[in-house]
Amino acid sequence: MQTGHHIAAWRHPGAQADAAVNFRHYVDLARRAEAAKFDAIFLADSVGVRNRDLPSLSRTARSDHFEPLTLLSALAAVTERIGLIATVSTTYNEPYHVARKFASLDQISGGRSGWNLVTSSGQGEAQNFNLDEHVEHARRYARAAEFHDVVLGLWDSWEDDAFVRDRESGVYFTPEKLHPLHHRGEHFQVRGPLNVARSPQGRPVVVQAGASPAGRDLAARTAEVIFVAHQTFDEAQSFYRDIKQRAQGYGRDPDSVKIMPGIFPVVGRTQAEADEKFARLQDLIHPVVGVQLLSNMLGGYDLSGLPVDGPLPDLPETNGGKSRQRLLVDLARRDNLSIRDLYLRIAGARGHQQVVGTPQSIADQLQQWFEEEGADGFNIMSPWLPGGLDDFVELVLPELRRRGLFRTEYEGRTLREHLGLARPAHRAAAARAHAVEEESLRALG
Amino acid sequence: MQTGHHIAAWRHPGAQADAAVNFRHYVDLARRAEAAKFDAIFLADSVGVRNRDLPSLSRTARSDHFEPLTLLSALAAVTERIGLIATVSTTYNEPYHVARKFASLDQISGGRSGWNLVTSSGQGEAQNFNLDEHVEHARRYARAAEFHDVVLGLWDSWEDDAFVRDRESGVYFTPEKLHPLHHRGEHFQVRGPLNVARSPQGRPVVVQAGASPAGRDLAARTAEVIFVAHQTFDEAQSFYRDIKQRAQGYGRDPDSVKIMPGIFPVVGRTQAEADEKFARLQDLIHPVVGVQLLSNMLGGYDLSGLPVDGPLPDLPETNGGKSRQRLLVDLARRDNLSIRDLYLRIAGARGHQQVVGTPQSIADQLQQWFEEEGADGFNIMSPWLPGGLDDFVELVLPELRRRGLFRTEYEGRTLREHLGLARPAHRAAAARAHAVEEESLRALG
Repeated sequence: MQTGHHIAAWRHPGAQADAAVNFRHYVDLARRAEAAKFDAIFLADSVGVRNRDLPSLSRTARSDHFEPLTLLSALAAVTERIGLIATVSTTYNEPYHVARKFASLDQISGGRSGWNLVTSSGQGEAQNFNLDEHVEHARRYARAAEFHDVVLGLWDSWEDDAFVRDRESGVYFTPEKLHPLHHRGEHFQVRGPLNVARSPQGRPVVVQAGASPAGRDLAARTAEVIFVAHQTFDEAQSFYRDIKQRAQGYGRDPDSVKIMPGIFPVVGRTQAEADEKFARLQDLIHPVVGVQLLSNMLGGYDLSGLPVDGPLPDLPETNGGKSRQRLLVDLARRDNLSIRDLYLRIAGARGHQQVVGTPQSIADQLQQWFEEEGADGFNIMSPWLPGGLDDFVELVLPELRRRGLFRTEYEGRTLREHLGLARPAHRAAAARAHAVEEESLRALG
Repeated sequence: MQTGHHIAAWRHPGAQADAAVNFRHYVDLARRAEAAKFDAIFLADSVGVRNRDLPSLSRTARSDHFEPLTLLSALAAVTERIGLIATVSTTYNEPYHVARKFASLDQISGGRSGWNLVTSSGQGEAQNFNLDEHVEHARRYARAAEFHDVVLGLWDSWEDDAFVRDRESGVYFTPEKLHPLHHRGEHFQVRGPLNVARSPQGRPVVVQAGASPAGRDLAARTAEVIFVAHQTFDEAQSFYRDIKQRAQGYGRDPDSVKIMPGIFPVVGRTQAEADEKFARLQDLIHPVVGVQLLSNMLGGYDLSGLPVDGPLPDLPETNGGKSRQRLLVDLARRDNLSIRDLYLRIAGARGHQQVVGTPQSIADQLQQWFEEEGADGFNIMSPWLPGGLDDFVELVLPELRRRGLFRTEYEGRTLREHLGLARPAHRAAAARAHAVEEESLRALG
């Protein structure tokens, strides 16, 4: 969203440079996406400004943006079908607030909300929440796992039919259908109940984006949608199979976890047109921005004093992101790339699958991933907005529809229905159904 | 909002019993209020279910409701002028989140957001946030004061003209116009900057509702609107004068603090019609609900086993709310009231000014408060919704307009403009202006 996924998108004439404060831009995008029958709008987030390097920060559109839950709530009022997925971190938040806001959005939108559960790793975020350094990885994931369980428990505070609201008798809810949580764990102590009725979707959809072993494990246990970045089909397929297997290990139907890699599509009627569109975007990257991006990916090594058209110097070993650093250095040496060449290679999709091509070639690739255990769907990260989204909708979707790979009309009303995810039964109702079943089996036996 | 302020409102045939999950009801209310040219919609809040007594809780509409910020964000998208004020507690929250959400809502709504800053006192709330007992009063207020200062500081992270977004040069913002906060206080450590541009209103309007000495002091120093409950004109006037004086003591223009008492109006074309409407509502109070409400107001003394039409028993001394208990007992003895009579006396406005009368008599009272230092405006707490609001709009507003006391059209677009509050200058810009002024004075001198 915002101006687009490409780092220089905001400078593109087809982008909305003031997207960060232009609500109408988002209304327009949401309506276009809904008219095209996408499953959902997905908003990334950060609770702070991550980059501290002013010369590059001041040349990117990454310092200001709407807060996702306020924005999606507003969009809920002007859309009818499209899902609304917001990123909210578990690291500097409380499960009661998060459970409540997504439940409320689910009520407002008639069952269209999704929570992208993340942990915060940046120092820029930690320092906005009373800390000097960010919370270390294992502790963040332990907190995230418990946070998730508390949120799900709160979402089951009330059974679906708890609220009778019978004016005549004066009974507003049935006391037996209220279930306070009484959670006491390592990180949280939450009594409940939530002060929002059970959600139209049973509960909002839980999305995750964990790629580390701890992240994969949490996602396989708890996520209903997994957002992930891959650069090759092999990578995607191996991740896909790993997650589906882990999910089964947790007793889950592998089909109840949808894997959706990000894709960065630059679409042209011909390959030459696509290449030209991409080149036009790449030309907009200010060297200060490109060099800083590369420095970050090299683990913080400062390249700012070096000639941008000269070679990458020999780098000292660093602690952070060692393998990524090695990959980049090898790439530069192999292809004899200058600093500028190298940042241009990585500045587009930034880790996601980058496809610059015709509707046919892009559809071929999506189809392969979809049919050969690489993906259950995709997160379309438009290079610039709204123009880049329009290209995808007008050129690629018709091709996907011809192949029977994309809907022509919504089949349902909720995000779960769009995604093909079942509506979860309430815990107490499920337990009662189970008890009845056991009883019948005993009666038979 | 919701079903209405009266405790039995949800049972009224003119109310929307399922308001808690009915977004369309709120859209309808917001549009009616906007068409009537009210300043703002005001949403109360609680981060938990306060009442633990199931027999009475299950007979009131107080256990479920939309979360205020998601609801007001959604309403922002379907209204154009009316202000949007949400209650958010400082006790179990972080200033970065709160600053960000209200700034985002201010951007989405084009300058219509207001924050009702409160502290949380209920055990039912504390137990949802890792505590066994609620935070004690002095500590809550110290935290609230620092919380306020951090939020205001974050709202000044960027100067008004920081974001130039010049596609040609590639400059997105002017680095000199970014001001990280670097706050290190007793309760919070927040570096900043906020990742939202300065708000259309300069900053969202700050509302408070403190009646205790600590609350009054914080409000006089920081609030722009004060929401308060009074039962008599004398009380209102004495509070009004006290606050305006305290505000002056803090170097503030007393007119920059607007005092708005709550009012609970039951309107009839005749007094008899008004009385009848009120009686109809009162008849809907289930004795279990009335007795529990009275028990709470008596400091937790359990009356549930006693005959509801019998007298109030002699009460043992309690710790909490002693003076209120004394008042109620004296009232019952003086007027020879049964338990039922007594709860009916207090169940309507619950502490706010209750007016049951004709458009003329209600307008008389509002006019007196407004003209004789009792109020700068009012918070209309409709007995039931939407019917009770319609009565006020259709019967009382025309009378107020005839007297020149209520607008016929919005004069401005922002909540500040509706309230007659100036747009605050950015700190750095203000400091620069001050420096220039000093310089000119020196040049003259």
